[in-house]
Amino acid sequence: MIKVAVLGYGTVGSGVVEVIEQNKEQVNKKAGDCLEVKYILDLRDFPGDPYENKVVHDFNVIVDDPEVQIVCETMGGTGAAYKFTKACLEAGKSVCTSNKALVAEYGPELLKIAEEKNCNYLFEASVGGGIPIIRTLNSCLTAEKIEAIVGILNGTTNYMLSKMEKEGAEYADVLKKAQEKGYAEADPTADVEGQDACRKIAILSSLMTGKNVNYEKIYTQGITRISAMDFEYAKAAGKSIKLLATSKLEDDKLLAMVAPAMIDKENPLSMINGVFNGVLVTGNMLGDSMYYGKGAGKLPTASAVVGDVVECAKHLGKNIKCHWDADEVELVDVKKSRRAFYVRAQASAMNEIKKAIPNGEVVQLADYSDEFAYFTPVMVEEELDRKLEAVHRQVLSVIRLA
Amino acid sequence: MIKVAVLGYGTVGSGVVEVIEQNKEQVNKKAGDCLEVKYILDLRDFPGDPYENKVVHDFNVIVDDPEVQIVCETMGGTGAAYKFTKACLEAGKSVCTSNKALVAEYGPELLKIAEEKNCNYLFEASVGGGIPIIRTLNSCLTAEKIEAIVGILNGTTNYMLSKMEKEGAEYADVLKKAQEKGYAEADPTADVEGQDACRKIAILSSLMTGKNVNYEKIYTQGITRISAMDFEYAKAAGKSIKLLATSKLEDDKLLAMVAPAMIDKENPLSMINGVFNGVLVTGNMLGDSMYYGKGAGKLPTASAVVGDVVECAKHLGKNIKCHWDADEVELVDVKKSRRAFYVRAQASAMNEIKKAIPNGEVVQLADYSDEFAYFTPVMVEEELDRKLEAVHRQVLSVIRLA
Repeated sequence: MIKVAVLGYGTVGSGVVEVIEQNKEQVNKKAGDCLEVKYILDLRDFPGDPYENKVVHDFNVIVDDPEVQIVCETMGGTGAAYKFTKACLEAGKSVCTSNKALVAEYGPELLKIAEEKNCNYLFEASVGGGIPIIRTLNSCLTAEKIEAIVGILNGTTNYMLSKMEKEGAEYADVLKKAQEKGYAEADPTADVEGQDACRKIAILSSLMTGKNVNYEKIYTQGITRISAMDFEYAKAAGKSIKLLATSKLEDDKLLAMVAPAMIDKENPLSMINGVFNGVLVTGNMLGDSMYYGKGAGKLPTASAVVGDVVECAKHLGKNIKCHWDADEVELVDVKKSRRAFYVRAQASAMNEIKKAIPNGEVVQLADYSDEFAYFTPVMVEEELDRKLEAVHRQVLSVIRLA
Repeated sequence: MIKVAVLGYGTVGSGVVEVIEQNKEQVNKKAGDCLEVKYILDLRDFPGDPYENKVVHDFNVIVDDPEVQIVCETMGGTGAAYKFTKACLEAGKSVCTSNKALVAEYGPELLKIAEEKNCNYLFEASVGGGIPIIRTLNSCLTAEKIEAIVGILNGTTNYMLSKMEKEGAEYADVLKKAQEKGYAEADPTADVEGQDACRKIAILSSLMTGKNVNYEKIYTQGITRISAMDFEYAKAAGKSIKLLATSKLEDDKLLAMVAPAMIDKENPLSMINGVFNGVLVTGNMLGDSMYYGKGAGKLPTASAVVGDVVECAKHLGKNIKCHWDADEVELVDVKKSRRAFYVRAQASAMNEIKKAIPNGEVVQLADYSDEFAYFTPVMVEEELDRKLEAVHRQVLSVIRLA
């Protein structure tokens, strides 16, 4: 019998208890032992809840109980969650979490404590919800030199962009609908500005390089300026627009960024629609492989946390080495990197743009003679910026091609 | 330093040596130790090959060398490969293989020996080439009750069907092209008749249920009777035709089969084109997740074998429990299971078919008034067979819907 504690009885925390209970047979078989939730830490009481007698308000009850070997941190945030996680690991208890903010901020430190104390800090649920992308990088694609990871890592924005594409709707309207449906929060900033995806690609980038990628240094741009017209041009060019979180080796540096991108319909990521997530991994031997599934939601996320609990149960007293050092990875300046661009501008700027950036392709839509789109050749981004300076008042939007 | 032996220096075997050598840095870091190929077993000599001095012809050199801890079996077949694998495991050496035929035939027996001898028998490369689907089932989705696995597990047939769909070509023509391109063998039976996919879904089904699924009992139908006309009707109905390997829990039994199926364009598997493979896994908590990548080829397959070698290196002297008992799973009789069907028939049979099977949907194509397609409601398969008996001479093809 292995005793488990759950910190935070919110959406994911209650999902964890539900998965352990409902899939008892499978979980215990895979763990090779019986798992039992002994404590649930929460400030609130839950009268009438089937597990109300397990609820405690004092963290010390958990950290001081030698019977508790595995702790699920499903509180979120980087305050108490950090303190509690650290204390548990220092007490030799393994911690499984869905808390991407904490992992992105304190990953190397917490992993180091886990290693020293022969326990584990696992965070499968922090990226891609129920998609097993972390374990895939750490334990499956181990014969690969991973050259790139490109992901659709935020379900809210992917739902919104899919809806804009399908219905020709504007950003503000789909945001409202997403909020009504509960897919977007009242304050949608973390999703629509790309901050959520940024934390996640920071984690994946760190695992890819084995060093630390500071999420604060990742170029991050959201989807708030994408319009229905951009989708019209994308469609005309056989492309789709997605919020991509990208991590790509360029010589000895790493290009890491979150930004909307136009992608070809042949790109497997163009098939990821609605609230789903997808992660495309390029290895030097395997080539492309893609991992697809529900990137959020109570039970998919809880399933990933419990998968980690099972892994901890199979490795009690033994650290599973995770290569994520504190050394910081040097990032490429996005402005100095090369790619093609989609530039949408007023028709009056067409000659000037074509002259400044030769060899691109003009796309015009039947009913919109007052504007056009220009697909540039591959060029350095700061060069594009410079060349558009003179006409910047006529430029309606710029989106990178991927 | 961990010494490795490779049995069989063919396509995959030479790929294994290449991956270990070329990705040395990544592989050794993940393995936590240096891997070195000490022997390559092959009947042939390889003068001029950079590893010619490692080639041996006598298996006993390998099995009797206590320094060799991990063996890669990339010979194929169920004769010598079985004998050698068994001998290695009995000597406490871990074995990693790409040999689906051997795994499907002797999985439980070999896993049992590995468990008794505290070593491992790993076979990630046996299904889906470089796609990490085995480890995903065994070590990632461990909190799930897996309810279904549906896969496109054979790249040759998927290449052929994709080409038929895209170009309107006939089966015989694409087979010829696939053979010219080296995607299909001179004798394509194992691929086009579904036997290859059958071994693979037997392995996945066994891991899904934890018991043995006898591949010889899996209903298996190939793609040889699919025609360009079938694709015309599929397109008209917004569907695609794929060779699906299916494993689905139905009450306490398992429905396992390999057969062509018409699938909706919304099904993520419809996006798997060309030689790629894809596996859609349905869990009771996570819902659908999909794993996509190169299902064959020298380096992708070798990468999966070496990933297993790394896993073995991390678990020397420790068996990683794999739940696959010798008890046989009871399979559902496909003829007694329920689904909808596509029936293509001569126009003269339309009234009779509509009368015998009400509430279906007729699809007719502009230039083909002498025939039609009928999409039936969900019904038991043997009932369909019975109802089509009277008109069987006018029936041109029948494909299951999925």
